[in-house]
Amino acid sequence: MITHPAFSVEPWCIRERELHLDVLAQSESIFALANGHIGLRGNLDEGEPYGLPGTYLNSFYELSPLLYGESGYGFPESDETIINITDGKLIRLLVDDQPFDVRYGRLVGHERVLDFRSGTLKRIAKWISPSGGGVQVCSERLVSFTERSVAAICYEVEPIEDRVRLVVQSELVANEPLPSSSGDPRKAIGLGSVLSSEDYGCRGLAAELVHRTASSGLIMAAGMDHILDGPDRTESSCESYPDMARVTVTTVLEPGQKLRIVKLLSYGWSAERSRQAVRDQVAAALTGARHTGWEELLASQHKYLGEFWDRADVELDGDLEIQAAVRFGLFHVLQAGARAEGRAIPAKGLTGPGYDGHAFWDSETFVLPVLTLTAPQAVAYALRWRHSTLPDARQRAAELGLRGAVFPWRTIAGKECSGYWPAGTAAFHLGADIAHAVVSYLGATADEDFEREVGLELLVETARLWCSLGHFDSSGRFRIDGVTGPDEYSAVADNNVYTNLMAEQNLREAAAAAERHPERAAALGVEGDELARWTKAAAAMTVPFDERLGVHPQAEGFTDHEAWDFAATEPDQYPLMLHFPYFDLYRKQVVKQADLVFAMYLRGEVFSEEQKARNFAYYEALTVRDSSLSASIQSVLAAEIGHLDLAYDYLGEAALMDLYDLERNTSDGLHIASLAGSWISLVAGFGGLRLRSGRLCFAPRLPEQLSRLAFRICFRGRHLRVEVTPLEASYLLSIGKPLELEHYSEQLTVTTGKVLVRPVSPPSVLDRPSQPVGREPMSRQAGRRRANRAVRRPRSNKNEGSQS
Amino acid sequence: MITHPAFSVEPWCIRERELHLDVLAQSESIFALANGHIGLRGNLDEGEPYGLPGTYLNSFYELSPLLYGESGYGFPESDETIINITDGKLIRLLVDDQPFDVRYGRLVGHERVLDFRSGTLKRIAKWISPSGGGVQVCSERLVSFTERSVAAICYEVEPIEDRVRLVVQSELVANEPLPSSSGDPRKAIGLGSVLSSEDYGCRGLAAELVHRTASSGLIMAAGMDHILDGPDRTESSCESYPDMARVTVTTVLEPGQKLRIVKLLSYGWSAERSRQAVRDQVAAALTGARHTGWEELLASQHKYLGEFWDRADVELDGDLEIQAAVRFGLFHVLQAGARAEGRAIPAKGLTGPGYDGHAFWDSETFVLPVLTLTAPQAVAYALRWRHSTLPDARQRAAELGLRGAVFPWRTIAGKECSGYWPAGTAAFHLGADIAHAVVSYLGATADEDFEREVGLELLVETARLWCSLGHFDSSGRFRIDGVTGPDEYSAVADNNVYTNLMAEQNLREAAAAAERHPERAAALGVEGDELARWTKAAAAMTVPFDERLGVHPQAEGFTDHEAWDFAATEPDQYPLMLHFPYFDLYRKQVVKQADLVFAMYLRGEVFSEEQKARNFAYYEALTVRDSSLSASIQSVLAAEIGHLDLAYDYLGEAALMDLYDLERNTSDGLHIASLAGSWISLVAGFGGLRLRSGRLCFAPRLPEQLSRLAFRICFRGRHLRVEVTPLEASYLLSIGKPLELEHYSEQLTVTTGKVLVRPVSPPSVLDRPSQPVGREPMSRQAGRRRANRAVRRPRSNKNEGSQS
Repeated sequence: MITHPAFSVEPWCIRERELHLDVLAQSESIFALANGHIGLRGNLDEGEPYGLPGTYLNSFYELSPLLYGESGYGFPESDETIINITDGKLIRLLVDDQPFDVRYGRLVGHERVLDFRSGTLKRIAKWISPSGGGVQVCSERLVSFTERSVAAICYEVEPIEDRVRLVVQSELVANEPLPSSSGDPRKAIGLGSVLSSEDYGCRGLAAELVHRTASSGLIMAAGMDHILDGPDRTESSCESYPDMARVTVTTVLEPGQKLRIVKLLSYGWSAERSRQAVRDQVAAALTGARHTGWEELLASQHKYLGEFWDRADVELDGDLEIQAAVRFGLFHVLQAGARAEGRAIPAKGLTGPGYDGHAFWDSETFVLPVLTLTAPQAVAYALRWRHSTLPDARQRAAELGLRGAVFPWRTIAGKECSGYWPAGTAAFHLGADIAHAVVSYLGATADEDFEREVGLELLVETARLWCSLGHFDSSGRFRIDGVTGPDEYSAVADNNVYTNLMAEQNLREAAAAAERHPERAAALGVEGDELARWTKAAAAMTVPFDERLGVHPQAEGFTDHEAWDFAATEPDQYPLMLHFPYFDLYRKQVVKQADLVFAMYLRGEVFSEEQKARNFAYYEALTVRDSSLSASIQSVLAAEIGHLDLAYDYLGEAALMDLYDLERNTSDGLHIASLAGSWISLVAGFGGLRLRSGRLCFAPRLPEQLSRLAFRICFRGRHLRVEVTPLEASYLLSIGKPLELEHYSEQLTVTTGKVLVRPVSPPSVLDRPSQPVGREPMSRQAGRRRANRAVRRPRSNKNEGSQS
Repeated sequence: MITHPAFSVEPWCIRERELHLDVLAQSESIFALANGHIGLRGNLDEGEPYGLPGTYLNSFYELSPLLYGESGYGFPESDETIINITDGKLIRLLVDDQPFDVRYGRLVGHERVLDFRSGTLKRIAKWISPSGGGVQVCSERLVSFTERSVAAICYEVEPIEDRVRLVVQSELVANEPLPSSSGDPRKAIGLGSVLSSEDYGCRGLAAELVHRTASSGLIMAAGMDHILDGPDRTESSCESYPDMARVTVTTVLEPGQKLRIVKLLSYGWSAERSRQAVRDQVAAALTGARHTGWEELLASQHKYLGEFWDRADVELDGDLEIQAAVRFGLFHVLQAGARAEGRAIPAKGLTGPGYDGHAFWDSETFVLPVLTLTAPQAVAYALRWRHSTLPDARQRAAELGLRGAVFPWRTIAGKECSGYWPAGTAAFHLGADIAHAVVSYLGATADEDFEREVGLELLVETARLWCSLGHFDSSGRFRIDGVTGPDEYSAVADNNVYTNLMAEQNLREAAAAAERHPERAAALGVEGDELARWTKAAAAMTVPFDERLGVHPQAEGFTDHEAWDFAATEPDQYPLMLHFPYFDLYRKQVVKQADLVFAMYLRGEVFSEEQKARNFAYYEALTVRDSSLSASIQSVLAAEIGHLDLAYDYLGEAALMDLYDLERNTSDGLHIASLAGSWISLVAGFGGLRLRSGRLCFAPRLPEQLSRLAFRICFRGRHLRVEVTPLEASYLLSIGKPLELEHYSEQLTVTTGKVLVRPVSPPSVLDRPSQPVGREPMSRQAGRRRANRAVRRPRSNKNEGSQS
């Protein structure tokens, strides 16, 4: 956890004014740049010191064997692990023969800024070398949203006072040594040097390295080129080797002179194409980038982001820190998904190697809902990626004795990589989560081509899964036994409410889609009998209810289990999974993350208001939030039920997850889903937005700490802006044809240019539910005061705290 | 499976008259000799060909890491694996420069006999070498029951016709190469060369090798000495090296002359003592064995077994094959446990490396019940072994957040070695199984010293486990959630009936024992409160019952699950666990092995007759017997309920498990529990024996195929012989004070020398229950006819079949 205010709070950027080496790895994740294809961790230009060097290409992975103390049929045999590819960020600097390294000499000025509008990471460092030479280094780095395979760095050095002699080495380095990994299962495994050289070469100030992975057999190429601007007598040279290429620039700067190097980077990879083809592709992209030039790359980046914020921005009055955090979250969600284009959106985006670079259900359940209303094109691509993995998913289903498709719990390229089936393979809800994302995307875009080409088949194959996974019992109820729901502190239970309700929707939506596209459905082998079975299973779906307690058990039997002894659990025993065996967690009433509460969000229409309130209170007392996927959903339900203060507290936790390193693993990469969750918490929580039958419904309500919330979404080609104040909500259509929507249960039609204003109804007053002792959310009210103080004196706290 | 009649059926031995190389590995298990401390597989003297070379010392193991695709808290980190130690069985022979190897030249005569009364493996081979020289080799091998660390081989060679020149090499070989292992989890893992030389040497015709294991740090020594008897000019020498020692004997035999070598072997190991101490111990044992001499070793072996059969023999009229098989089984059960003396009794005894040499619950549940009534001293030792592992078991309990002791599901030395917790750690019933074995032993021996020193503490620590594992629900019932019962095709379920009923007994018996020994109990920290909690938990124990079906669900919810689709399951898809994922097995109604049915055996008094019949029929239709631990228990319940034919079929399967290699892994070692099960099936099944409140109760009844069953047991110092015919049962006390027992519900008192005869009541006629299609037991009636035919022409079938 980061206990000192490492980053200052500004509306459109994250700014770091002191370099804290104790949180260097966290800052590298926070300052990571990516476009969904290339990811660069926010490592210092000179490479060292580092927390964790990191350069990634989406879906460029190596295979390693998955081993088992005792193996079993169907246990996955190979793990796909994202690898740290050739590092092109490196620009080493010698000042009068002393290497520029912030650990030596004196760092008299430091600032890094991640700018959400320019889409760049800027750095200014003022450094006095041990031998007294002083330089100011200004760098600005971007990973282009518009040129997918291009990144660029503008690197400038100037003397502070006296003349300095400089040598700059701009490099490509493959197989960088990495810090060794720990035993924490959430971290990445270390594979060692996995890139073997296939080709390399240089010409002018450009160089390329081509490498192959041994087991996965993927080929990648990295290229760099440079544009120099320095005083006369600036000299340069280039050399290349199998694992390294280097451009060396030498000059002497007099006071007032400046050396400017624009480093253009290009990356490509392929599983199919030859090494020469991949190398050519990278060389071509470099030529293109050189043609574009730094200023133009910068301008395009700015324009791309300008358009994004125009349709996606969220504004907040009353909490500056959350204002910054929600934009930070949106920016990183965009970075994770914008140009993935047929590849997965991993849980940590391309910001670090955590979770081995795998994508999980949170892609569809947290990230896509945000993108659906802010960057729908990216959603189509993400779901096309899932669709492209259908052959693997069908094969997995067959291997498991099931019909349809079983998508992998965690994967990069489509194969199941989960080494612990009760919390992996058994979490079949993923199939329904994907179906839900398809339905939401279709609802928000009415993209018929997509439905016909991609959506229908995803719905059909997941519906088939449910039909073969469940069965009708002797009293005619449809049961789904022995599966694991979202809560990872329960597993392999019967009739998990979340799973069953999501499956029910999946079955119904598949039938409806098949009826809309009878020819395409027939081509997928769907016949009338099958539709009838889906409809019948949906209608007979078991949803257990504990009449005695008046609540829904998370799964059958859950409410009969022993309650976890929270009073006897020490604060340092969280997360529980690192201190207690699964067997103990599974058989007791303790909840890692929203599960039944999640069902009440995504399938809210199934629950009465009273049930929601009772269920919420029941599960609040059991939920420890040992997952980053919980706070935002608890926030949404708390807001819906009327616990606005609590919702606000949870919003704070979700939004600040990484800026404060609350899960203590931000060093491995950002929690993209939790960042998405901060948007969900604001828009679905306080904005009360639900998508029902393809219609936008709002039930907005603000906590007393916020005086205004405004958010923009795009929906079926329209751009809508919603503004909520304590007493009123206003709806404004900026682009598009008139739109019908609901405010509470009132039907409204908004037309462009005309603001519709409606009153906000106050919530009923309810007792605030209690959480397990010690697991209450941090008070956002107090956090806000703290943060606001920090804003007033941003540079005063250098030694205030240390990392815990 | 062995489909040809490999072994002939004789009342007191297993005889092989042809050498079938295709079942060599199986025969090595079947012909294994052991005394519970040393185990020698039935490898050919000359070492090759082999199925699997094997020499074992009980609990001499190596450690290797247990790896996990995804690890978790409390997952065991090390596996203990039995290792193939220094092989002292090897006697290589050169005949006129040709190595004696049955794969070359011509084997004109072959016979091997495992004799249950002499306790030896005898072999006669007549072999013509490729160059024409012919020899007869007769060897006899024993592992001494009376000198625990000694084995011996008497090896004789004589020419068949012409003069032969012989060289005999008698060896000790460490780190023999082993065939590589497969992926079958039931097999042993291969560790490679694990013995590192510590010391070696020779003098005269004696040699010793001392080795240490790298990770477990155990030291072992093997020694050999020789007594030669050959013609004049027989020469001999001895040499030794780190991994090998060799005595070479050279001679020329004229027709009528013979070379006789008695090879004495001694083994010892220690975790504590120095290499010199262990080497000295082995040398001393060799000196002792030399003083005893071969004939005396043989005579002592014979006497030891004579006394065993006097108190333990089972006779059968009407089924020669089962007669042989049940003695075969008793012999191997004795070999597994007789001199284990403070060590575990592994699932495969010391007959092979299967299951890594681990002991499981079957030790207490199958093997000890037999030994309790036939060799109770061995039971006391086996339970003292469990008791000696209490420190590890208490530590494991603490690690799992529980009180008392959690014994390992599989282990050699006491640490949990199960690499898959749902079928390992979660099978907590082991604790109650151990308690049950304690209670049975105490009932059969009234051994008060044992109760005070060992039994009480085992009962107390297991009772403590149940109290912390279970909880009282809001209606006051005591529940045990999330555990795995005997059936390995279900896991992590609530209120498994077997577990709960065994736990209930455990709690009650612990309370009773603590009341009998208040001072000792106080020393163990047992106080009145704790006793009251045990009693209260026992009284409130949940035993689920499905009112709708009128049967007990194996665990809560079981009868609501989908029935396995047996019709769609192909014969080659058994065992199911090798062809279907656990998740599918767990969530459906399919039973690997007796579970609820086991509960009806061990806790029969809890079930009404009608419940037993209904439950039995219900579970018969779901039980596939993919475990060797099922048929015998199904046999017992079938006999009790009155399905005598079915009981007889199951008896056949249990008794012939290894002689026919029915589980297809006899090559890795014998199924000691299933062998014990054939005795259980006869004595508890057709003999109807139950131990109730320390009293012997009989309800005998024979299937029509058997005309007589007689068995001997020892009970509280008495020797009792029970003989059952179709119409009568007779009870004879041969040794000891008058004994009260029950015949059906009639109380009898038997006194020495006076046979009590009582009528046998016929069973009620019930419909034979059905099994899953294709999983019906083999008809024993047909098997008996086949076997009887085979007996009549034992040498006619050499090429009849091949191994499947």
